Amino acid sequence: MTLEGKMLIGQQAIAGTQDPIHAINPATNARLDPTYPGGSREDVGRACALAWEAFDEYRETTLENRAGFLETIADEIEAIGDTLIERAVAETGLPQARIRGESGRTCNQLRLFARTVRAGEWLDVRIDPALPERQPLPRADLRQRHVALGPVAVFAASNFPLAFSVAGGDTASALAAGCPVIVKAHSAHPGTSELVGKAIRAAVTKSGLPQGVFSLIFGAGREVGHALVIDARIKAAGFTGSRSGGLALWQAAQSRPEPIPFYAEMSSINPVFPLPAALEARGKAMGEAFISSLTMGAGQFCTNPGLVIAIKGPELDTFIAAAKEAVEASAAQTMLTPGICEAYAGGVNAFANSGQVREIARGQQGDAPNQCQASLFATAARDFMASEALQAEVFGSTSLIVECNDSAELKQVAEHLEGQLTATLQMEADDTDAARALLPTLERKAGRILVNGWPTGVEVCDSMVHGGPFPATSDSRTTSVGTAAIFRFLRPVCYQDLPEALLPEALHTNNPLSLNRLVDGQREEQ
Amino acid sequence: MTLEGKMLIGQQAIAGTQDPIHAINPATNARLDPTYPGGSREDVGRACALAWEAFDEYRETTLENRAGFLETIADEIEAIGDTLIERAVAETGLPQARIRGESGRTCNQLRLFARTVRAGEWLDVRIDPALPERQPLPRADLRQRHVALGPVAVFAASNFPLAFSVAGGDTASALAAGCPVIVKAHSAHPGTSELVGKAIRAAVTKSGLPQGVFSLIFGAGREVGHALVIDARIKAAGFTGSRSGGLALWQAAQSRPEPIPFYAEMSSINPVFPLPAALEARGKAMGEAFISSLTMGAGQFCTNPGLVIAIKGPELDTFIAAAKEAVEASAAQTMLTPGICEAYAGGVNAFANSGQVREIARGQQGDAPNQCQASLFATAARDFMASEALQAEVFGSTSLIVECNDSAELKQVAEHLEGQLTATLQMEADDTDAARALLPTLERKAGRILVNGWPTGVEVCDSMVHGGPFPATSDSRTTSVGTAAIFRFLRPVCYQDLPEALLPEALHTNNPLSLNRLVDGQREEQ
Repeated sequence: MTLEGKMLIGQQAIAGTQDPIHAINPATNARLDPTYPGGSREDVGRACALAWEAFDEYRETTLENRAGFLETIADEIEAIGDTLIERAVAETGLPQARIRGESGRTCNQLRLFARTVRAGEWLDVRIDPALPERQPLPRADLRQRHVALGPVAVFAASNFPLAFSVAGGDTASALAAGCPVIVKAHSAHPGTSELVGKAIRAAVTKSGLPQGVFSLIFGAGREVGHALVIDARIKAAGFTGSRSGGLALWQAAQSRPEPIPFYAEMSSINPVFPLPAALEARGKAMGEAFISSLTMGAGQFCTNPGLVIAIKGPELDTFIAAAKEAVEASAAQTMLTPGICEAYAGGVNAFANSGQVREIARGQQGDAPNQCQASLFATAARDFMASEALQAEVFGSTSLIVECNDSAELKQVAEHLEGQLTATLQMEADDTDAARALLPTLERKAGRILVNGWPTGVEVCDSMVHGGPFPATSDSRTTSVGTAAIFRFLRPVCYQDLPEALLPEALHTNNPLSLNRLVDGQREEQ
Repeated sequence: MTLEGKMLIGQQAIAGTQDPIHAINPATNARLDPTYPGGSREDVGRACALAWEAFDEYRETTLENRAGFLETIADEIEAIGDTLIERAVAETGLPQARIRGESGRTCNQLRLFARTVRAGEWLDVRIDPALPERQPLPRADLRQRHVALGPVAVFAASNFPLAFSVAGGDTASALAAGCPVIVKAHSAHPGTSELVGKAIRAAVTKSGLPQGVFSLIFGAGREVGHALVIDARIKAAGFTGSRSGGLALWQAAQSRPEPIPFYAEMSSINPVFPLPAALEARGKAMGEAFISSLTMGAGQFCTNPGLVIAIKGPELDTFIAAAKEAVEASAAQTMLTPGICEAYAGGVNAFANSGQVREIARGQQGDAPNQCQASLFATAARDFMASEALQAEVFGSTSLIVECNDSAELKQVAEHLEGQLTATLQMEADDTDAARALLPTLERKAGRILVNGWPTGVEVCDSMVHGGPFPATSDSRTTSVGTAAIFRFLRPVCYQDLPEALLPEALHTNNPLSLNRLVDGQREEQ
């Protein structure tokens, strides 16, 4: 498959007319062909018009057809084969094994949403039959289902060129909900985006769907994304990226004449709490495992463990010594883009020079372009709580150890944290009471709580929550990974006294879709 | 029970220190004792501190205890007896039968939420058991439940002194979710608010709950409400009222360092579409029924039918003639407050003098204070679509008939509408195709679609949606009436590899609460 450097506006491949983007191989700094000229406001408008036109038809596709469409996308992505893997490796500097794994995850994710669509629980069917004899007033026949919000804008992420980009989690969940999708490609991997975009386009055709169900747009600056978010035909958006970028688009979404849900997954430092008995039992092993999680993928994960909070003492010193050794032994790794590498180095330097931390260790320096050096710092709990800067996320493999005087101060630090995607307890049986005392705080602060694991590695399943209180995300009521993500793009509609002929099939009395229903206050036997 | 004119900050009755409010009997313009001095920022701060303190304990109350608490509130409200009915009648000018009905609805609503709490479906328990042997990577044990968002601010409505005020739908659903509640009383009915507030306070004591679970605050201006919404300890808010008031508070909620969900139910004109065959079959009866819905309760309902959209011709003329007669025969009615009555008269006059409508009829003029005169206008579809003013809600019993040339223009008008709480079709069997053609538009525009009913009268049940796209509400993904309202105040949390001893009871493997669970992708047999 030859790359064309064009956007996909519905079925048409369109050459942009604005400032171009071009991928760079971060491992070599070589520029990768082709060039991708950016889209104009008119391009955005055309994609939105097509999406709007497709909406009413697409949102009423049968469960089977919509599920089949998601599976066809997965098949089409797999059919690209090694071309996709090689391009994604070249555009991101990520190892081939990781990209292969991510490709599998992306296709599994689409198939999992297909299963979710078929099961139809997202329709949340509720039926309250008429009670014509009720006193003092009769009850009408009332039935509820969920419907799709409307066309959705998806902002692809830099750090997951497949699983959180063109056919990633946001796209899969929006399509599953019945929403047409317009993706703003991430500028770091346009070739990967084009390949995956064409796979979706092929699936649209094969599934006999209106072309506006999917479009893919490129843009060098923030104009295209902004134009997309403020278009009246866009009814929701999903974003994964930086706090500043997320907040700017969130603000735009809230300032529209009709504000829309804007799901931004932004910023998290993912505190880890090694509790006293765990430190005593396995401080050394834990320190090593910590650095292994921290340096995985050059630390370029939203769930990277950027913060360790523990009570100081010889047990913590053992943990720190092991971590120090592991950091110092850690190899330099290529980061996703020159910009990300620069921001990482700048963030680490600002940290080191803040006067509020002491440096524990630095990893090995690389000699290839765009390589990062892992780093580890420590600070006192008091200093941490007094400084906003020490709570800011530095994207990459750097972490801060916060040393507390006692369990009361540790709890204080926990209460002081901003919202997080994850919070992790490292514990032994003797830590149970301490863990229990921390749990209410962690539940208020994080979307996912782990025991004796590490936060990197996000399972795509029904019970996953990849979300959390602000600023981890802009909306703690949802998740961006896992099947519950579908609810972000739905709203309930109630039908009162509609004749059967007009009711959507999901609400027909005889339950032709075999849906799980709440009827007259009771969960119906299946 | 003697009224004290005091706020309830937790268990304490506190006299305010700011500008006072006092109720007025709108039927006589008589001032009602006592005076209610307004709360200060410090009072708001104290209520928030107590709510925050109560939160962790209250959100972990057992399903049984929390349900019992809601039922006790209902019992306590009933125990007030006629004192409550009389005070509410005096403060609102609403007929006694209506207030008695509303009191019953309020208590039923609390008991319905008790049932919802006990059923526990709102926990949305999902379990993905560990797969230690899975290749290439094992799966951790992952479990999800919903937890309460945090203390909730509730802004009471003017038009439902019981069902949407101190112990109304917002309060019931927030308490059901596990959120402490601070109510900003509506200034039109402080005595009713005090009585109901004390009932909740008594239920807090009887249920052995921390006092901060409930507080009630008065305030003459917007300061108290604003202070409440921007307090960092408030994590969500519910509001029913005007578009300007709702948007101002919504804006404040979004501008916080940590933005919060702000559920405002604001503005809806509730279009009714009498379709051709229905007009032909029963134009006269329909015209009469329309005015009966329009003038019910002086038109002071969010779901008042403020707009009729139909194809012009002799059948519509028959409908209009009957409506005209009914309006002219309609008695003057006391409105809720002098301010509301004045705003209604002003709104109707602005409408009449807009040069864009023709007056069809006015109702009888009253000679008592604060009485409104019903009114009915008509306009051409073209003029309606060209004017923003004609789409604005005038709160009270006035409506506008939009005359369309044909079904294409009718569809155009429907597409032109802003978001609505309801949309109503009046139809006969021969209208089925026309109705089907309109449905996709109505589903995009409204939270509830009715056939051959009238939008006033909102059933409190599982399938109700009292919500809808902006500006009907600030968040179309939810409802403010019915049991699904509980989801407004919840967020999901995922627990990874937690030992059974640390897991919340709802997630224990042996399902001690007999919850409806999604286990490994399958709905579990009960």
